[in-house]
Amino acid sequence: MYKVGVIGAAGYSGIELLRILNKHSNVEITVITSNTFKEKKLEEVYPEFKDVLDLSFEEFNIDKIINRVEIVFFALPAQASMEAANQFIKYGKMVIDLSGAFRLQNIKQYPDWYNFTHKYPALVSQAQYGLSELFREKISGTRFVANPGCYPTGTILGLAPALEHKLIQTEDILVDAKSGVSGKGRSLNISALYYESNENMYAYKIGQHQHVPEIEQEIQILSGELNSSIVFVPQVVPMDRGILANSYSILKKNIAVQDILEIYKEFYKNEFFVRVMDKEQFPKTKAVQNTNFCDIGLAVVGKRLIVTTAIDNLVKGAAGQAVQNFNIMTAQSEEEGLL
Amino acid sequence: MYKVGVIGAAGYSGIELLRILNKHSNVEITVITSNTFKEKKLEEVYPEFKDVLDLSFEEFNIDKIINRVEIVFFALPAQASMEAANQFIKYGKMVIDLSGAFRLQNIKQYPDWYNFTHKYPALVSQAQYGLSELFREKISGTRFVANPGCYPTGTILGLAPALEHKLIQTEDILVDAKSGVSGKGRSLNISALYYESNENMYAYKIGQHQHVPEIEQEIQILSGELNSSIVFVPQVVPMDRGILANSYSILKKNIAVQDILEIYKEFYKNEFFVRVMDKEQFPKTKAVQNTNFCDIGLAVVGKRLIVTTAIDNLVKGAAGQAVQNFNIMTAQSEEEGLL
Amino acid sequence: MYKVGVIGAAGYSGIELLRILNKHSNVEITVITSNTFKEKKLEEVYPEFKDVLDLSFEEFNIDKIINRVEIVFFALPAQASMEAANQFIKYGKMVIDLSGAFRLQNIKQYPDWYNFTHKYPALVSQAQYGLSELFREKISGTRFVANPGCYPTGTILGLAPALEHKLIQTEDILVDAKSGVSGKGRSLNISALYYESNENMYAYKIGQHQHVPEIEQEIQILSGELNSSIVFVPQVVPMDRGILANSYSILKKNIAVQDILEIYKEFYKNEFFVRVMDKEQFPKTKAVQNTNFCDIGLAVVGKRLIVTTAIDNLVKGAAGQAVQNFNIMTAQSEEEGLL
Amino acid sequence: MYKVGVIGAAGYSGIELLRILNKHSNVEITVITSNTFKEKKLEEVYPEFKDVLDLSFEEFNIDKIINRVEIVFFALPAQASMEAANQFIKYGKMVIDLSGAFRLQNIKQYPDWYNFTHKYPALVSQAQYGLSELFREKISGTRFVANPGCYPTGTILGLAPALEHKLIQTEDILVDAKSGVSGKGRSLNISALYYESNENMYAYKIGQHQHVPEIEQEIQILSGELNSSIVFVPQVVPMDRGILANSYSILKKNIAVQDILEIYKEFYKNEFFVRVMDKEQFPKTKAVQNTNFCDIGLAVVGKRLIVTTAIDNLVKGAAGQAVQNFNIMTAQSEEEGLL
Repeated sequence: MYKVGVIGAAGYSGIELLRILNKHSNVEITVITSNTFKEKKLEEVYPEFKDVLDLSFEEFNIDKIINRVEIVFFALPAQASMEAANQFIKYGKMVIDLSGAFRLQNIKQYPDWYNFTHKYPALVSQAQYGLSELFREKISGTRFVANPGCYPTGTILGLAPALEHKLIQTEDILVDAKSGVSGKGRSLNISALYYESNENMYAYKIGQHQHVPEIEQEIQILSGELNSSIVFVPQVVPMDRGILANSYSILKKNIAVQDILEIYKEFYKNEFFVRVMDKEQFPKTKAVQNTNFCDIGLAVVGKRLIVTTAIDNLVKGAAGQAVQNFNIMTAQSEEEGLL
Repeated sequence: MYKVGVIGAAGYSGIELLRILNKHSNVEITVITSNTFKEKKLEEVYPEFKDVLDLSFEEFNIDKIINRVEIVFFALPAQASMEAANQFIKYGKMVIDLSGAFRLQNIKQYPDWYNFTHKYPALVSQAQYGLSELFREKISGTRFVANPGCYPTGTILGLAPALEHKLIQTEDILVDAKSGVSGKGRSLNISALYYESNENMYAYKIGQHQHVPEIEQEIQILSGELNSSIVFVPQVVPMDRGILANSYSILKKNIAVQDILEIYKEFYKNEFFVRVMDKEQFPKTKAVQNTNFCDIGLAVVGKRLIVTTAIDNLVKGAAGQAVQNFNIMTAQSEEEGLL
Repeated sequence: MYKVGVIGAAGYSGIELLRILNKHSNVEITVITSNTFKEKKLEEVYPEFKDVLDLSFEEFNIDKIINRVEIVFFALPAQASMEAANQFIKYGKMVIDLSGAFRLQNIKQYPDWYNFTHKYPALVSQAQYGLSELFREKISGTRFVANPGCYPTGTILGLAPALEHKLIQTEDILVDAKSGVSGKGRSLNISALYYESNENMYAYKIGQHQHVPEIEQEIQILSGELNSSIVFVPQVVPMDRGILANSYSILKKNIAVQDILEIYKEFYKNEFFVRVMDKEQFPKTKAVQNTNFCDIGLAVVGKRLIVTTAIDNLVKGAAGQAVQNFNIMTAQSEEEGLL
Repeated sequence: MYKVGVIGAAGYSGIELLRILNKHSNVEITVITSNTFKEKKLEEVYPEFKDVLDLSFEEFNIDKIINRVEIVFFALPAQASMEAANQFIKYGKMVIDLSGAFRLQNIKQYPDWYNFTHKYPALVSQAQYGLSELFREKISGTRFVANPGCYPTGTILGLAPALEHKLIQTEDILVDAKSGVSGKGRSLNISALYYESNENMYAYKIGQHQHVPEIEQEIQILSGELNSSIVFVPQVVPMDRGILANSYSILKKNIAVQDILEIYKEFYKNEFFVRVMDKEQFPKTKAVQNTNFCDIGLAVVGKRLIVTTAIDNLVKGAAGQAVQNFNIMTAQSEEEGLL
């Protein structure tokens, strides 16, 4: 049994972690923190945990926590994660960070995209980006994972086979992505109210979303092309969970969609959590809701390759992939806790 | 043209007032206030008003407002309305208050149900309760209306013919009512977030909702029976707008549902905004959405009369009825602005 | 490993059975039938089963099925279940029927409430009503369960402790219940379309719903009072899953809500799947979504006891409870497959 | 008063026409047809029309209708519209067709995109494409309008200023568009059920949607470039109404978004129903719900122009624009009935 702590457990990703970890055969959740709800019972804040998980939130205090955990998940704002990672790693704990604090290898990008200067460059280079299917080997050898963002997860899994096989140009890839409202988190802002969100759909932060450099970085790594770039348009749609991310790229040469599908199926043939659809079948977010699956559909129109992917933003896009990475890091069955 | 002010215009009822008043042929909206958004343009806060209504919020300041309005609507918290009414009425302005500040004739009820002591008993007795269909004559002669609450509107319209015809016992009437999430208003609380509200339904404040004394008061007035009482269970359901209010009362004598329907149809035969359904037809909230209608359906099971009513909580349950009352007070066509 | 068949597997309850049974450690699903989708792969109809459950629908043909199953679940219309049960029971198979075909002990009620005459009275008396928590012992000794309806499940669990302790009158209990749209099933009718259901809420079949005699029968059994009766008002609300069922009954004597809560907590203290809330806490459907829990909240207003219960209509209200009964019948852990 | 008929009035577009026409000062609706609901009262099928519009559906029979209408709106399937237009135009009636039957000038495209061969080439060349803001003059001189499709309306209005000013390349424009479920119409198909649509989002008919040739045709007309082409990805999202259509094109030369916004604002400065947002503001479907507005937002990322537009698919995308065209054709105020 691994003693696990969830730091920042009261937001939507944190709660999703608790839901999954609680079903995990080899996990004992020993610590959950929330400064907002400190000393409250979990079930007071989230009544669905009554008789299911008997824990209380505590304030984040490294000294009181450190001896009770072997591995910690952070579901914190990026800047808070940056500090927390520094503390836990000093003590040699395994860390899986769900924020963006350690995803960008070029730390000069932090001020522009995350509004803070990164204080721990050494830690950034130590962190392994945790897109499980693409970096499994490296993840298995690390004690510190930077878990991918929700939009990047679907987008990159959808592009990886095409990039690896050099099928597409990597400049000016368009990514049009839509997320359910849980993507806004549980903080109080008017735009997340039901009456503002229901029956509403809109783009935001066009070209300015913090997932832009993350996606570009991974495209560069996968393709080896340093001038890779994307145009990214995130959108909100009225549903609880789910991301549908479409990418539009230009094929380098003529190739039939059926052949590309074969390449994709081959690429992911050993991956339980990635499902490549058949021709003219496209993924639906409801088919992946509450699961760790990423479904991928393809189409070719003219010289354009269109990849459309569906994930649950809180599972494969956050807590589920974090647990998948935990399983990889600890050499457990990758599906444990996730079925 | 009436010069109209909306005091507290930035909440959902206030905005609904603007929407309706803006379509009213004889209204010029001269003042809209919001302390939160003072000096902001309406369209900055609610972009749907761009090119539709060119106004800016101002801070509430009686001196700056008083000469620019003939009639004011209050869409304020009850205690703020209590104070505002005192100010505007001093100056002889017509007032329509959408809060509960002047609905309860027995001012001793305010501390228990509204958490404040009422400072203006004389004003309370001056205010006319504005259930348009039931008190039209009195409304036409007043300059101060206490506009009914959302739950009371449907509930009381649904019971009135049965009460007037003494068909039902008035002790222990059960009212099971469900409201869309806009009923929570636009204030920031966790329970009004999309992800907390969507796919969720629950009862709250059972027996403790501030609309209990309001409904009981009107049942007493309509029936003449002072021991009238209700059991009231309000609930929230995941939709923008709409209240479905069911009341359960005991018939004093055996009477077929068809005969009761006749009584209801006769009672409301001249009422444009009340529609009595046929036998075995029950109202749907979507059929009244964005309208000022109250639809009423009836069933009899054993000795029980079941009345089920549907309104749009923001229209007939708030802003629409307020404008209907304004039309009555000023001897305009009652439908003006409401079609 | 039990060889399990799901007869009528393509509707919402059938699919929910597959989802749950597929996670069950001791189950091998050997047969799934659907006349509509015969010979289609499950994943063609429900793409979420791709790589998760590799089965194909077959036409219902007793001869082709009988040797491949030890236990069958029926998710069929009532009349079809009536015939299927007769066939499988002849062969000595264990049967769990999710329809109403064997719930009513008084078979004279079938023509009125189900529109058919029951052909197998002997089977009706053989079937055990499967409200797991209340009839566990009898269920453990039977090979034929009539699984409860969705509305009855929450309603009866909510009333049982009060009935057993003779706290309430059993004549004229009011039940005001609301269901998510999945309760309509997967058949094509206009009223189940998204645009007809979204932002809509309404009562239907007031006093005429087929769950009336089922609830009355169980109240009679639990209370021993043969004149027990209910007024039942079912309603539809715009959400996928969830039933909120409120019952209103009259307390026989004065008793504080806190004392009733103690009785309820004592009554259900060994029941994992029933959670009694604390005072002034009321159940939320989202807290039980996708779970087999039934949450119960209580209030007393005057002489009225108000019980409000929440379940997931497809889980505790159908497939989940069916599997719970399967576990009881086969002496397995009751939670197996349901966590 | 114009005598108006709505042919095919029982679907969602037809009903929306009735809603709008009923508020129009100069319209008398004299005929509504529906073969499915013939002889039924409108309010039986759509109870929201009770006391609002007292009409009955009749079967489509040209002889019985022809003398009772001056102008007809068709809300029919394309092939049925093709035939109906032929009949009404023979008699010299004004026709506004909401289907695609007369939108494509190249009638050879009909078999591929609409699955039928067009029988009336002469009528096709007679029909005026009814994108009100772009073809007002021609519309004012015609008696036969082919009303635009829902996806094309927002997409083309969003591209027109850039095309006219030759700001963008017209080959390989990407259009990623999302529609509420009402876009599926009121016909019975499983995918339009609530439980299939809610919490679901997916692409369909990628590159194969019948609006592709319509959008390409208009881009060619507006730009004068015959090799104009699009990649079109339509998607469904769980909401009643609303289309968010994003187009991605390549700027021919460097130009700041602020300058493009100026061009757009100038282009649409006299258009009441088109609103160009300010920089970094993007349209929301809820802000245009139940209105005839098209809101347009712009962003530039690198060399890409991103145009995001929001309309209500049933109003500006269908019935509203049809009435706008009627107003233009009959020299009435363009906003009549649409405010």
